[in-house]
Amino acid sequence: MAVFHGGNLAGAAQAFGVPSQGWLDLSTGINPMPYPIPDIEKGLWTRLPDQEVLDDLKVAAAQYYGVDDPAKVIPVSGTQTLLQIFPHLFEKPKAVRIVGPTYKEHEFCWRLAGHDVREVEDVFEAMNDGEIVIVVNPNNPTGDVHAPDTLLEMAQALHQKGGLLIVDAAFSDCTPTLDLSGHVGQPGLVVLRSFGKFFGLAGIRLGFVLASGALAERLKEGIGPWAVNGPAMEIARHAFRDIHWIKHTRETLARCAFRLDDILSKGGLQVVGGTSLFRYCFHENATEVYEVLAKNGVLVRPFPERPQYLRIGLPGEENEWQRLSELMEIINL
Amino acid sequence: MAVFHGGNLAGAAQAFGVPSQGWLDLSTGINPMPYPIPDIEKGLWTRLPDQEVLDDLKVAAAQYYGVDDPAKVIPVSGTQTLLQIFPHLFEKPKAVRIVGPTYKEHEFCWRLAGHDVREVEDVFEAMNDGEIVIVVNPNNPTGDVHAPDTLLEMAQALHQKGGLLIVDAAFSDCTPTLDLSGHVGQPGLVVLRSFGKFFGLAGIRLGFVLASGALAERLKEGIGPWAVNGPAMEIARHAFRDIHWIKHTRETLARCAFRLDDILSKGGLQVVGGTSLFRYCFHENATEVYEVLAKNGVLVRPFPERPQYLRIGLPGEENEWQRLSELMEIINL
Repeated sequence: MAVFHGGNLAGAAQAFGVPSQGWLDLSTGINPMPYPIPDIEKGLWTRLPDQEVLDDLKVAAAQYYGVDDPAKVIPVSGTQTLLQIFPHLFEKPKAVRIVGPTYKEHEFCWRLAGHDVREVEDVFEAMNDGEIVIVVNPNNPTGDVHAPDTLLEMAQALHQKGGLLIVDAAFSDCTPTLDLSGHVGQPGLVVLRSFGKFFGLAGIRLGFVLASGALAERLKEGIGPWAVNGPAMEIARHAFRDIHWIKHTRETLARCAFRLDDILSKGGLQVVGGTSLFRYCFHENATEVYEVLAKNGVLVRPFPERPQYLRIGLPGEENEWQRLSELMEIINL
Repeated sequence: MAVFHGGNLAGAAQAFGVPSQGWLDLSTGINPMPYPIPDIEKGLWTRLPDQEVLDDLKVAAAQYYGVDDPAKVIPVSGTQTLLQIFPHLFEKPKAVRIVGPTYKEHEFCWRLAGHDVREVEDVFEAMNDGEIVIVVNPNNPTGDVHAPDTLLEMAQALHQKGGLLIVDAAFSDCTPTLDLSGHVGQPGLVVLRSFGKFFGLAGIRLGFVLASGALAERLKEGIGPWAVNGPAMEIARHAFRDIHWIKHTRETLARCAFRLDDILSKGGLQVVGGTSLFRYCFHENATEVYEVLAKNGVLVRPFPERPQYLRIGLPGEENEWQRLSELMEIINL
């Protein structure tokens, strides 16, 4: 079964004979109702990214994430770029334990940098011999969540043995009560945030590491100056302050996710997890479902190692909802 | 003497009591007549950067840089991000020799990754015990150039002892005959290119590593997916193919540089080097010149370690030229 990683519709087009323009892409967990792009002043394209705008972005991000000090907010050109750099900033190889199944790029990037990396089943196993523990919360793709208190205790325990808890909160914007961002500053805790998923703007490449103290300084040096493009800084500092849009979007996404559950159940898919931005589904013949959907131009996310599961994102326009709904009725025949 | 690194007008504003908006910023080497931003389709902001657009960008870049195979073109989110990652992709610390004085970020980033780094005076000293040799060609800020044949021989010699020549060609767009990009594929040669300087769009964060073989594969893994934002990919694939704009801009920049020389000489500044995008100047009291300019809202680049030199970029609008010209007459009183 071919997996077409987010952003590769061309590959899917070739494999299934559906032209690139014809796809309904539900293979990612990106909000299909994006934050509207404000006017971008010319200097944001032409000049090197301005320190003044960057500082203001950090203030806006700190406020949105509930972080008490903008100095703890480190903007990066997408979480992926951070993953490519962060594992290199340790003098010696570490025992890295990743609670999975989860987003594969963590494992790939830490291994690439020479660490001893293992994906484990739960946090207890991770704490057993892990020096750096990575938890995606809520988890992608399962939607599993960990209680904030549990994670804070883990960070504390890891710190006492010279380690670190990295919480990837890429999908936490819809569940702020579960989020640990406001606790950054406690020893041993680092939080990763993604701008593009909730705000629906994955193309601008923007993420944040929330960290404090000596680790924050090391991250800032490791990431270097001018990491984020000018338009991204400008868009995000507006979006973070648009509390009406944020509130409305949280509500809308929650409603959309329930609507998606209804539609998926018509196709015999059992929703077993997820977040407001995607659903994680079980089906005895999920591989067949995947292929029928793909041949009809709807791309979802299969998991070769778990062939009975699919991750399915939200349609945006009403005609996309209708299209998915009609397909689900066909599947169930 | 305070140095305000490109992109930090706010710092200069504070130091000299000139409001941010009032500055004429000549402290960088960025073309002040930028490539016009084309219409950006909404999906480029919202979707993950698309593989199809990225592939087309690589084709356009290969053609512009004279590289025979788009697979040798690796797009990055600005050369700076590449500098933050590249030094980490070696298993053991290397003897890195940088021909200087030159752009300081090379030294900083290789040292940060634990290599044995020294800035040396010339290529012969660099070749003496260097495993990785870095040459900025044309050099920033001096404008010194190295003959392509010399550099190709160096790459060859370094390759034979398991090493590498890195040519930072960030300012080579105006002097294509000096450029080695078309030779990438020869063992031991890597070339770095910057999009934002010649095309006047430093805010979009776009650069390229040109490399081949196993090293190219290691770089691709080290940089990871979705490195470049959607709008940047779209703008650059248009700009690279706009041969009229490119030709016209090369001619215009060359004319502007001569005009700048005339103006600077009125202020008693002796132009001793540079490229079409900036001039490198000597003045007995360059520090005073820097301060008089700054107090009058014109920011140029001083060098604390070489206090008799300044680097000065091109004004853009006619009123900016007039402003600089009038200031130079004052300076010479």
